[in-house]
Amino acid sequence: MKRTRVLGGMGLVAALLLLWASPAGAQTAEEQVIQLGIDLNLLWVVIGAVLVIFMQAGFALVETGFCRAKHAAHVVSTNFAVFGLGFVAFFLVGYAFMFGGFSYGAFGYDTPLNADGLIGSGHWVFLWKSGFALTGKASVPAVMGFFLYMVAFMDTTATIPTGAMAERWKWKSFVGWGLFCGAIYYPLFGAWTWGGGWLSQLGNSLDLGFGYVDFAGSGVVHAMGGIAALTGAIVLGPRIGKFGSDGKPRALPGHHIPMAMLGTFILLFGWFGFNAASTFAATDVQFASVAANTAIAAAFGATIGMFWIWRRGGKPDPAMMANGMLAGLVAITAPCAFVDPWAAMVIGSVAGLLVVESVFFIERKMKVDDPVGAISVHGVCGVFGVLAVGIFANGKYGAGWNLTTTNGDGGVAGIIKGFENLDQLAAQAIGAAVIVVGFGLLSYAFFKIQNALTKGGIRSEEEHEIAGLDLPEMGVLAYPEFTQAHTGYVSAGTGAPVSSPTA
Amino acid sequence: MKRTRVLGGMGLVAALLLLWASPAGAQTAEEQVIQLGIDLNLLWVVIGAVLVIFMQAGFALVETGFCRAKHAAHVVSTNFAVFGLGFVAFFLVGYAFMFGGFSYGAFGYDTPLNADGLIGSGHWVFLWKSGFALTGKASVPAVMGFFLYMVAFMDTTATIPTGAMAERWKWKSFVGWGLFCGAIYYPLFGAWTWGGGWLSQLGNSLDLGFGYVDFAGSGVVHAMGGIAALTGAIVLGPRIGKFGSDGKPRALPGHHIPMAMLGTFILLFGWFGFNAASTFAATDVQFASVAANTAIAAAFGATIGMFWIWRRGGKPDPAMMANGMLAGLVAITAPCAFVDPWAAMVIGSVAGLLVVESVFFIERKMKVDDPVGAISVHGVCGVFGVLAVGIFANGKYGAGWNLTTTNGDGGVAGIIKGFENLDQLAAQAIGAAVIVVGFGLLSYAFFKIQNALTKGGIRSEEEHEIAGLDLPEMGVLAYPEFTQAHTGYVSAGTGAPVSSPTA
Amino acid sequence: MKRTRVLGGMGLVAALLLLWASPAGAQTAEEQVIQLGIDLNLLWVVIGAVLVIFMQAGFALVETGFCRAKHAAHVVSTNFAVFGLGFVAFFLVGYAFMFGGFSYGAFGYDTPLNADGLIGSGHWVFLWKSGFALTGKASVPAVMGFFLYMVAFMDTTATIPTGAMAERWKWKSFVGWGLFCGAIYYPLFGAWTWGGGWLSQLGNSLDLGFGYVDFAGSGVVHAMGGIAALTGAIVLGPRIGKFGSDGKPRALPGHHIPMAMLGTFILLFGWFGFNAASTFAATDVQFASVAANTAIAAAFGATIGMFWIWRRGGKPDPAMMANGMLAGLVAITAPCAFVDPWAAMVIGSVAGLLVVESVFFIERKMKVDDPVGAISVHGVCGVFGVLAVGIFANGKYGAGWNLTTTNGDGGVAGIIKGFENLDQLAAQAIGAAVIVVGFGLLSYAFFKIQNALTKGGIRSEEEHEIAGLDLPEMGVLAYPEFTQAHTGYVSAGTGAPVSSPTA
Repeated sequence: MKRTRVLGGMGLVAALLLLWASPAGAQTAEEQVIQLGIDLNLLWVVIGAVLVIFMQAGFALVETGFCRAKHAAHVVSTNFAVFGLGFVAFFLVGYAFMFGGFSYGAFGYDTPLNADGLIGSGHWVFLWKSGFALTGKASVPAVMGFFLYMVAFMDTTATIPTGAMAERWKWKSFVGWGLFCGAIYYPLFGAWTWGGGWLSQLGNSLDLGFGYVDFAGSGVVHAMGGIAALTGAIVLGPRIGKFGSDGKPRALPGHHIPMAMLGTFILLFGWFGFNAASTFAATDVQFASVAANTAIAAAFGATIGMFWIWRRGGKPDPAMMANGMLAGLVAITAPCAFVDPWAAMVIGSVAGLLVVESVFFIERKMKVDDPVGAISVHGVCGVFGVLAVGIFANGKYGAGWNLTTTNGDGGVAGIIKGFENLDQLAAQAIGAAVIVVGFGLLSYAFFKIQNALTKGGIRSEEEHEIAGLDLPEMGVLAYPEFTQAHTGYVSAGTGAPVSSPTA
Repeated sequence: MKRTRVLGGMGLVAALLLLWASPAGAQTAEEQVIQLGIDLNLLWVVIGAVLVIFMQAGFALVETGFCRAKHAAHVVSTNFAVFGLGFVAFFLVGYAFMFGGFSYGAFGYDTPLNADGLIGSGHWVFLWKSGFALTGKASVPAVMGFFLYMVAFMDTTATIPTGAMAERWKWKSFVGWGLFCGAIYYPLFGAWTWGGGWLSQLGNSLDLGFGYVDFAGSGVVHAMGGIAALTGAIVLGPRIGKFGSDGKPRALPGHHIPMAMLGTFILLFGWFGFNAASTFAATDVQFASVAANTAIAAAFGATIGMFWIWRRGGKPDPAMMANGMLAGLVAITAPCAFVDPWAAMVIGSVAGLLVVESVFFIERKMKVDDPVGAISVHGVCGVFGVLAVGIFANGKYGAGWNLTTTNGDGGVAGIIKGFENLDQLAAQAIGAAVIVVGFGLLSYAFFKIQNALTKGGIRSEEEHEIAGLDLPEMGVLAYPEFTQAHTGYVSAGTGAPVSSPTA
Repeated sequence: MKRTRVLGGMGLVAALLLLWASPAGAQTAEEQVIQLGIDLNLLWVVIGAVLVIFMQAGFALVETGFCRAKHAAHVVSTNFAVFGLGFVAFFLVGYAFMFGGFSYGAFGYDTPLNADGLIGSGHWVFLWKSGFALTGKASVPAVMGFFLYMVAFMDTTATIPTGAMAERWKWKSFVGWGLFCGAIYYPLFGAWTWGGGWLSQLGNSLDLGFGYVDFAGSGVVHAMGGIAALTGAIVLGPRIGKFGSDGKPRALPGHHIPMAMLGTFILLFGWFGFNAASTFAATDVQFASVAANTAIAAAFGATIGMFWIWRRGGKPDPAMMANGMLAGLVAITAPCAFVDPWAAMVIGSVAGLLVVESVFFIERKMKVDDPVGAISVHGVCGVFGVLAVGIFANGKYGAGWNLTTTNGDGGVAGIIKGFENLDQLAAQAIGAAVIVVGFGLLSYAFFKIQNALTKGGIRSEEEHEIAGLDLPEMGVLAYPEFTQAHTGYVSAGTGAPVSSPTA
């Protein structure tokens, strides 16, 4: 049955609004305003997702800028490809493992896809089992919008190791990581926390505060990425030339500081989607406090990091400024909704100090080579952020948010509100320990097994690393026309790079 | 009559809200919530416009990164200037031609500017005629916000040929294209489709499904740009040195892979505005499905493109990864609101394959030189996207959206829902044919006539092309300080480039 | 008192919506829709803040791209660090000075933090005094979201001088400026205008129209930054080699045109948040007109600037295209809500001309060295924008916005609506004069005093400037691997730059 419009030649009909704001009797004003709030909440989450997806560009630029030119096409391509690889795996299976039991109240879609666990039940669920490839009940706007937000978080975890493992990682081994992270690694811890599994239930099962609380993922996203970055860097070993025969580290400076700075600004920009849209609702105005706290921690992290390295190293090193900002952002990510502005200032400042010290510790004491500082930024400051919830939470917020345990008397509280909140800090510490120990072992096992199963191992061939991975791995040079001093390659005419033994 | 506020020294008054939420009796709660929905819808469209405008930066970086350094200032400047040139022309006349008969229901402004056609009437309108320079009834927020969204789409079409025609296009000839595209080329097909003209009325006039349906412009924007890119590249001919004396193509690698990758990520980011805000309404929650489908197609396009070129060419070429993502995005643009997630996966995957094969076909079989792959990405995958509506549409959506033909029984359906929907596929095929044949001829004629009327033709002088267009055309070098191997120029001290016959 | 949820393993509860849309009796539909409007308004301001914060990346890229490679790490780092430095100072004290008396009606938080001035009272307030470090009543979402928006505006002012003073400014002296701008310089004029102080009260105190009106800060942000850029550049003096022994300027071309173009696009993108979210409300649909006017002025500024420099200098210089767009954006910032589209076109076009002429005037007549054109773009076009309100305002808008003086009969009107509106132009002229003279003197005094108190002055040492500031000031090179022709440094192997006396 077709209707032809009376007015010829018009584009947009008002049908949309007429349908939505249906005549009196069909929907009351109360129902209409609730529906409009639901629409707005979903819009906010989709806008947040778009911002988080753009963070991939930030990671790509930071990691590429802090690496050397001869590997630049390889580094930027790992950051590019991991978006698709992780996405594909998460779309097909990871999302179902993580969020199959999740409800979508803020978006007016109250029923979980399936309330039964694949492994575990009640307070002790370890994996869920529905929504594979967004089929069936998952193919509705509420779930699809939420999926988009969550796939972007997963890709952040997936891209963190590409920094610490840069300049010496085989492409095909990297591909394996991207798929593993999206399908299993990230969804597993995700199911235990944001998906409603056992860690989020510690408040119910063991009476530990609100259970493990992580507003936007200092732990779920950043520490999880950081620990994989650490184990991956250990399995790969340091880059050729990083440590001298005396065991002392040598500087291998990044090839493009403005690129890394731009990447940091893009990350700051996208982080507002990461944190502020984690209210899942514009009707929860806490998003404004979250956004402000996020910026406060970033500003203090960058500023304190700059002053600290200036004092410690004699110069206001640009890389440490950038890492200081990122450290503040990572650390505020878990507590951002639960703390006052002064606490955001403290958390950002501590993170700015911590990241500088951690970079030195990991390089000089642990002798682990992390070209971009990813382990310190995401791993160390991620763990700090998880614990900061149990220290600085002000007890004002949480009851209306997606806490699995709710407390009628108030919100999430840390030990600054009284030592009776040690149980909350304990829940946070358990979560942090699970990441560092449990997922440290899992990621280490993954890389070791992959290394054993791969002919020649997961590390690039020595001659490729010396010449630069771009041509042997990717088939192109990042900058075929710019003469490069360090690597000594001059491709003029022939297009062939000349490898240098001193590179 | 002035009122002085009682409270001295305050900035923002509550008058805004008081005016809006006027006292009971003046406006009912139902009216208030409808008004708030209208406000929100306009906001969503403006946010979408901002995202699409930012895509200009993405195009600039992709095209510049995939070109050579000696032309980089020229390529980036064409992408920059086309924003203003197309905008000025569309503002002054193009918008009036395209949307003079458009209504603005979702924004609470129901009357079209003028319901009479400039050329044609009833089901067969070819051009409209009101809203020139946004004067008169067009100078209201609803129309101005919509204009902003639409001018951004036009500029996407305008900037596509700057990629395929790069490195050999005279600046002043490019200026002519920018103005022509904004004033005539884009608005013409736009009037026939989104403006409510004859192609969108094929459902009413010839009973072909819902008429030509193109949610966000696989055809209206991308294929239209892609076909102009093809005809422009043919008229210009290939770059010096692209094809050897044996007719075989030679690789002229892009000078900056990270730049091109960043551009691709910016395009992905902006594309969410392009597609998801094309609901024109946040009260239509389909925007969330659209956004998720867009990402799914992008991720599968990039991933399948990467695996395909890896298998086919031996290396996971970064340019093909990037073009794979863009191909997925272009292809999903028309069907994104009408298909299920699994279909978005299929469409993105096919586009990822298609773009690789198309790049080879256009270069090796057609012997057309397209430095950045714009014809394949936007032209070929744009046509595929238009047809994909007629194949994969699930019949669930469309009745409330800006379809000129409405169907009370359901939404746009493709042949996967039954072969009775061949009429929809026929409408899509007619639209695609009009673009490829009709606008292929129009753009070819434009470039040929411009070529004949321009002293020396629209192609740059040979010596300029060899030395690089930057200095002769723009008066500056993109990178006056970096020594460049391929072009051989070393500007040290003198600032003068040395041209190389082997460039 | 804890509640365990009935459904195990779900994440997000509907409590949020249930709390918000409380049962009938508790909140009427009218109250609910007003609350939802408040939520939406706050969201719009937070989204605007995020866009404005991203503009920092734009400034960083424009300024770095237009400077030389040997200073690139220094220039990009000043733009990076100023975000944190200004932020920290504004957070601790600046915000309280500027907005302590501000009310937050659009966000449902009607009471100012403190309605008493620190200096002055009634119509003649010069500074406020509450909200230090966002403590006390300032620690609520409405104030924190508004703070985030406003701190981003402050940082724009702070970063403008880093362009004009680039390539010869000591890091530690720059640090002093960042803190001074965030704590005192910006908040002072801010308190007088947007904070509700004496300039905004000229309508009440001296009957001058609506008092000083500046919608989004042509004056408050841009001219304030531009005048500090001028005085700073005068105190520093021109770069070595900028003026020959004959006093004629020599071109010192920017090292990376695509970087500067990308930065310009990022600024355009962020500017929509800058201008359109300055309605402070999505319920005020004027945001759509503002966004369109902003784009119109940008497009005409870029296009007219391009044609003008093409005609005047023989080539369509990319730097002038970029500055033309920025000029249009700066000029439309004050009047964007008060003018018709045709006026936006005129304002943008005039700005496009003005910036070209101003760049020549400042360099050739005033002999001031401004490496990026910041004085012309932000200072000259900022003043033009302030005056444009008094010329082009159409009298339709303003009564509901945050005007301290309100006029029941209509909105802000300029002399195009009748010469009785000369009083509005007078208020604008007073504001402009206060910036140019008052804050010109203040910033000049700041730089002179800082120069006298700093050992060796605020200008970098000559040998550092010649070699490039990157290594001596920042400890790293921006591009340690790319061989650079102009500076002559080749770091091959040694990593040490070779300074060139001809640089």
